[in-house]
Amino acid sequence: MTDVKKRVCVVGSGNWGSAIAKIVGNNVLAHDDMFETEVFMYVYEEIVNGQKLTDIINSEHENVKYLPEIKLPANVIAVPDVVKACNDADILIFVLPHQFVKETCLKMKQFIKPNALGISLIKGFILTESDGIQLVSKVISETLGIETAVLMGANLATEVASEMFCETTIACENESYKPLLTALFETSYFRCKVIKNVAGVEACGALKNVVGIGAGIVDGLGYGDNTKAAVIRLGLMEMMKFTKVFLGNDDKSVFFESCGVADLVATCHGGRNRLLGEAVVKSMKDIRLLEKEILRGQSFQGPLIAKEIYSYLKDNSMLEQFPLLVAIHRICTREVDPRNFIDCLRDHPEHM
Amino acid sequence: MTDVKKRVCVVGSGNWGSAIAKIVGNNVLAHDDMFETEVFMYVYEEIVNGQKLTDIINSEHENVKYLPEIKLPANVIAVPDVVKACNDADILIFVLPHQFVKETCLKMKQFIKPNALGISLIKGFILTESDGIQLVSKVISETLGIETAVLMGANLATEVASEMFCETTIACENESYKPLLTALFETSYFRCKVIKNVAGVEACGALKNVVGIGAGIVDGLGYGDNTKAAVIRLGLMEMMKFTKVFLGNDDKSVFFESCGVADLVATCHGGRNRLLGEAVVKSMKDIRLLEKEILRGQSFQGPLIAKEIYSYLKDNSMLEQFPLLVAIHRICTREVDPRNFIDCLRDHPEHM
Repeated sequence: MTDVKKRVCVVGSGNWGSAIAKIVGNNVLAHDDMFETEVFMYVYEEIVNGQKLTDIINSEHENVKYLPEIKLPANVIAVPDVVKACNDADILIFVLPHQFVKETCLKMKQFIKPNALGISLIKGFILTESDGIQLVSKVISETLGIETAVLMGANLATEVASEMFCETTIACENESYKPLLTALFETSYFRCKVIKNVAGVEACGALKNVVGIGAGIVDGLGYGDNTKAAVIRLGLMEMMKFTKVFLGNDDKSVFFESCGVADLVATCHGGRNRLLGEAVVKSMKDIRLLEKEILRGQSFQGPLIAKEIYSYLKDNSMLEQFPLLVAIHRICTREVDPRNFIDCLRDHPEHM
Repeated sequence: MTDVKKRVCVVGSGNWGSAIAKIVGNNVLAHDDMFETEVFMYVYEEIVNGQKLTDIINSEHENVKYLPEIKLPANVIAVPDVVKACNDADILIFVLPHQFVKETCLKMKQFIKPNALGISLIKGFILTESDGIQLVSKVISETLGIETAVLMGANLATEVASEMFCETTIACENESYKPLLTALFETSYFRCKVIKNVAGVEACGALKNVVGIGAGIVDGLGYGDNTKAAVIRLGLMEMMKFTKVFLGNDDKSVFFESCGVADLVATCHGGRNRLLGEAVVKSMKDIRLLEKEILRGQSFQGPLIAKEIYSYLKDNSMLEQFPLLVAIHRICTREVDPRNFIDCLRDHPEHM
């Protein structure tokens, strides 16, 4: 990137995408020496109450479907065509469900600036036949040929949109981007810490969604705070172990950042995967049906990630080392009765 | 200790003391090859509904005041005289409010076996004019001249008493005690991990009570899970830093045990110091008055510990390095308005 003003594009517009567009839209105005003040937001077009969602966002400055009652800055412009949205952008903020990343990048590939910077806010892995599970940032980086940072933290979207104080973790290998990233994301209520361990931060963001389901299961079963704390701790230990074997990354400091223990705790108390865990105990319905009933259009990332992790662990003969992550996957697929969840944990390797 | 059967005494009988007496009472029966089956529990005598509390416990096998509706094993015998209770004991389990430890030990001093083992379940520091703040286990150990282990974890007493699954951390310098400690405390719902870092485990147990008040303050102010997660994480960072400067102990692994992150999370969601934090926001009453209204006889340890920590930090010119712990103390003393709590955290050293 050169020193001219940077153009920013937000690729995605769910509740988290809309909440981050609010921050970014305001910050480019506050730093108009560094950024172009117009921010394009790619919106997957839908008809809402007889109107196009992009038209509603551009006239009412509100994503009425995914982040209702929050005003977006008027300089955030909804664009239904991802190619037009990303055209000429220097900074691409990815905030899509992880299963749509690859196809979206392939559409954008021919049209982006070669020296653009990607920033992934996506929490999940990408599973391919040929390569097994991969980090989303790596898929973006390799598909588009650009450097990709990540942003993960204890950031439930609705609370961020309501400007309640929180922290986040940004990871970028290239330290020279730090001032740019801080200017783009930091506010008095959204405190950013920039570190280098991209893979570690991203693994935290994916794995915590699975543990969040486990927290919901113990809630659904009527256990209290002690049991939930045990699930959170055992989950954290399995997250650390998985990160070590999967990434060859034994840097534990990342788990003390907002993306680590803080995001895990927030997810296990207020996240949507926790809701799913609770529902799985209280109903025998299929996961996809529960998703439709509870989220009305959003998706639970947790069960997909649990499946991806399970597949990795199975291929590497490590199932018995991760009883919590494995039990959650099997409960989601209805192979294991959720009432047996705690029995899966009583003789956890951590107690030995 | 020799290989003859060990006699166990529980010194204290609040809600946690009674809950642990239930476990210990059952475990000495299950391991009657290792332990004398009679367990004396020292009970500070009170009159409850016109009867002595010790008489009620010994006839109804229930601590109706501090742990109602939970049956204690009949082999747990309430004794109102601490000297009689500890006489001939090989294992002394301390579970009193921390401000009564020193005087209780002084009473017992002449009467205990010289090779007894102490185990402290007490969460706090002891502040003396001459020595500043000290670990409770050290005060027990030095006053009585016995080795002292500790047991700390995500163990809200009522949930343990209801046999909901949880974990705990036991720390003992002398590894040869591990089988004895495991036999005494472990059950299918109360999983014990025995490690060596006594001071680190004990510091966690004390410090988390202060952070728990902070969690209650953000609840009282109407913040959500993101903000609470930030308080928990910043609290954890200050706990680690305090442990390092106070104990010269930089072993971070202890924070990943049940006594660390798990106990912190449980305390910040279900603990009594969290309740206090919430009350401090909603009322301008003095802390001691709130204690009387909310706890009816139990005590909040958090404000006392916050004061002890504050005094240590002030003496060592380190106040500005611990903005969260300091703000909580000043809110408890009413020097700072709880509505300013988040402002104390916006520019936390962890964000720099």
